[in-house]
Amino acid sequence: MQETPDVGELSPPQRTLMGPGPSPVHPRVLKAMSTPLVGHLDPSFVEIMDETQELLRYAFQTDNQWTIPVSGTGSAAMEAAIGNLVEPGDTFLAPTNGYFGDRMAEMARRAGGDVVRVGAPWGEPLDPDDVADACEEFDPDVFGFVHAETSTGAKQTNVPAITAAAHEHDALVVADTVTSLGGVELRVDDWNIDAAYSGPQKCLSCPPGASPLTLNDRAMDKVLDRDAPARSWYLDLSLLEGYWGDERAYHHTAPISNVYALREALRLVAEEGIEERWARHERVAGALKAGVEAMGLGLNPEPDYWLPSLNAVRVPDGVDDGAVIDYVLEHYDLEIASGLGDLEGDIFRIGCMGHGARPENVTLVLAALADAFDALGADVDGAAGMAAAREQLR
Amino acid sequence: MQETPDVGELSPPQRTLMGPGPSPVHPRVLKAMSTPLVGHLDPSFVEIMDETQELLRYAFQTDNQWTIPVSGTGSAAMEAAIGNLVEPGDTFLAPTNGYFGDRMAEMARRAGGDVVRVGAPWGEPLDPDDVADACEEFDPDVFGFVHAETSTGAKQTNVPAITAAAHEHDALVVADTVTSLGGVELRVDDWNIDAAYSGPQKCLSCPPGASPLTLNDRAMDKVLDRDAPARSWYLDLSLLEGYWGDERAYHHTAPISNVYALREALRLVAEEGIEERWARHERVAGALKAGVEAMGLGLNPEPDYWLPSLNAVRVPDGVDDGAVIDYVLEHYDLEIASGLGDLEGDIFRIGCMGHGARPENVTLVLAALADAFDALGADVDGAAGMAAAREQLR
Repeated sequence: MQETPDVGELSPPQRTLMGPGPSPVHPRVLKAMSTPLVGHLDPSFVEIMDETQELLRYAFQTDNQWTIPVSGTGSAAMEAAIGNLVEPGDTFLAPTNGYFGDRMAEMARRAGGDVVRVGAPWGEPLDPDDVADACEEFDPDVFGFVHAETSTGAKQTNVPAITAAAHEHDALVVADTVTSLGGVELRVDDWNIDAAYSGPQKCLSCPPGASPLTLNDRAMDKVLDRDAPARSWYLDLSLLEGYWGDERAYHHTAPISNVYALREALRLVAEEGIEERWARHERVAGALKAGVEAMGLGLNPEPDYWLPSLNAVRVPDGVDDGAVIDYVLEHYDLEIASGLGDLEGDIFRIGCMGHGARPENVTLVLAALADAFDALGADVDGAAGMAAAREQLR
Repeated sequence: MQETPDVGELSPPQRTLMGPGPSPVHPRVLKAMSTPLVGHLDPSFVEIMDETQELLRYAFQTDNQWTIPVSGTGSAAMEAAIGNLVEPGDTFLAPTNGYFGDRMAEMARRAGGDVVRVGAPWGEPLDPDDVADACEEFDPDVFGFVHAETSTGAKQTNVPAITAAAHEHDALVVADTVTSLGGVELRVDDWNIDAAYSGPQKCLSCPPGASPLTLNDRAMDKVLDRDAPARSWYLDLSLLEGYWGDERAYHHTAPISNVYALREALRLVAEEGIEERWARHERVAGALKAGVEAMGLGLNPEPDYWLPSLNAVRVPDGVDDGAVIDYVLEHYDLEIASGLGDLEGDIFRIGCMGHGARPENVTLVLAALADAFDALGADVDGAAGMAAAREQLR
């Protein structure tokens, strides 16, 4: 017999989550998480599935019938998209301008695809001309891009132009919208995106565990016409079609509570209105941006590519980013994060997502940063930052 | 603009879940689900991860360091086990005695394995001699078996003998313990199981979304020595090792709330004591068994293979199983399920799992069945069934 473990009651610290995710969860969503379960084939759950799909379509701004939550965190939805759309021998065009483009490439390789790249420096979006040139050169079957790069805080602009360039060469376009869905303007149908995936724990402010995915008919036709089945059984969309489609056949037990929570998070999106929500993110994150700029810190990406949901704030010279992050965690129970990959040590990543995109949270972030810089002896004008943000938020 | 959906407040019916899962969730676990989140790299979450792993080891009765919750439902843990242990060209020996053996085979195929089979009829366990013969004939690299077949209600007996047969031919042994972990005697180390996976929503009575997996050093050595990476990035255990191991490196955002819930569900296991919990399942399900037998229904598997957590109750001649299932759902908000695959129409599947394995739930099941049979004009002695169960439960 193994010794019986002695583990105490769950009582995590109460954090204000302003890093790259998870973001703070709305109390109504937490309440939905604790709703007693029905079975995954219960008639009442089928109704909840339908409603969740309808709400997801609204958030994605799409009429795609094939819009579902994938049973896993955002990376599961990513792998569901790429692993089903890429067949062995397909050419997959992936971007080089951030951490998550590399992840796309890695997943495409594991799906049996040949990966080619289209480049832009970290922190910059792809240029539509470069996408057109890469399509001309490589004739890809599938082209992936990242709408909102969580690693750099840069937004892909000119999305309709890059999807048009790919479509001219008959490539399917798959978009990573993990850090944009529900927080930053995203129009799947108007922008001619064939497939898009996201995570629930960013601008939807929902606990991770059931992750949005949408595919149009053209993308789904390719999935259903594959020669060999997808390499993952769990994420095989042709099998999931049996459960989320009309048949309602058992595939795997859906993460019922996570679907409850996602439904509630999406109801909050619908109540607020998607365009109003995008505007709120821009307004509140705008105050954060004004604040850090007035402190003399500056944001990493150019203003044109600024991503309100994820602010890449430059670390001042001579300051240890880890010391600042530890300070605000210790003194304010506040989570912000360091840079990732090429930008490690150069930026703080400060999220302004969903239920976290509120004036009080941004005010706390700025006040905590000002205190941290002061305590660590950095030459930063905290008071000016607070004043600039206040001005914006009034 | 898509029209704004009008979706009402979440208010699912209040079911008593006595089907093949999910099982009823303990209020303490529901409460854990609604705990505000910390980040997946927060120092406090690292502690919660450690505690969850310690509790998981106790439930599995193992010292395996490599014991984690996989970020998905039970089938994700299944695919993590099989997809990492089976390399392209490997021979995988899979059982034929139930629905989930077929699923193992399908996952092994998608991992690039050659699948061979060892047979037993649905509803019977594998015979160790047959396993030995199959190992002699096929020399498999990996052998999978199902400890508790949710599709048939049959328990694999003689586990140490079948693992010994496989080990004599140097095969790794992977066990499906989805419907046994936390409810039916299971001793991963004593029985020499190399890898085992489970689901949280069966005998642990936890919402689906984070699923137990354990591997011993021999199994993990194979995973870390693969020639080609696993075909799934999301479920790649060599990468997950970076997060759950000492490094704590970011791989994907863990389903934090589901880990909270699993930790609480496992605390309940530790508080009760694992052997006491197995005994409770046997005692309470024993009353259900006595009840249906006294009604004249009978269980499908032989008494030796009876699986307390999932009771395969034979449908009486002339009775439509669907009508009974609908009746108890409509009149009692009670979920039981029909047979699957070869046993469709022949059996009811009645779970007695975790927080559902209580006298009041079994009493409700028997009373509801007695009413349903009476209303549908079946020749079943409901009163005798109730009396027999009462006798056992006193």
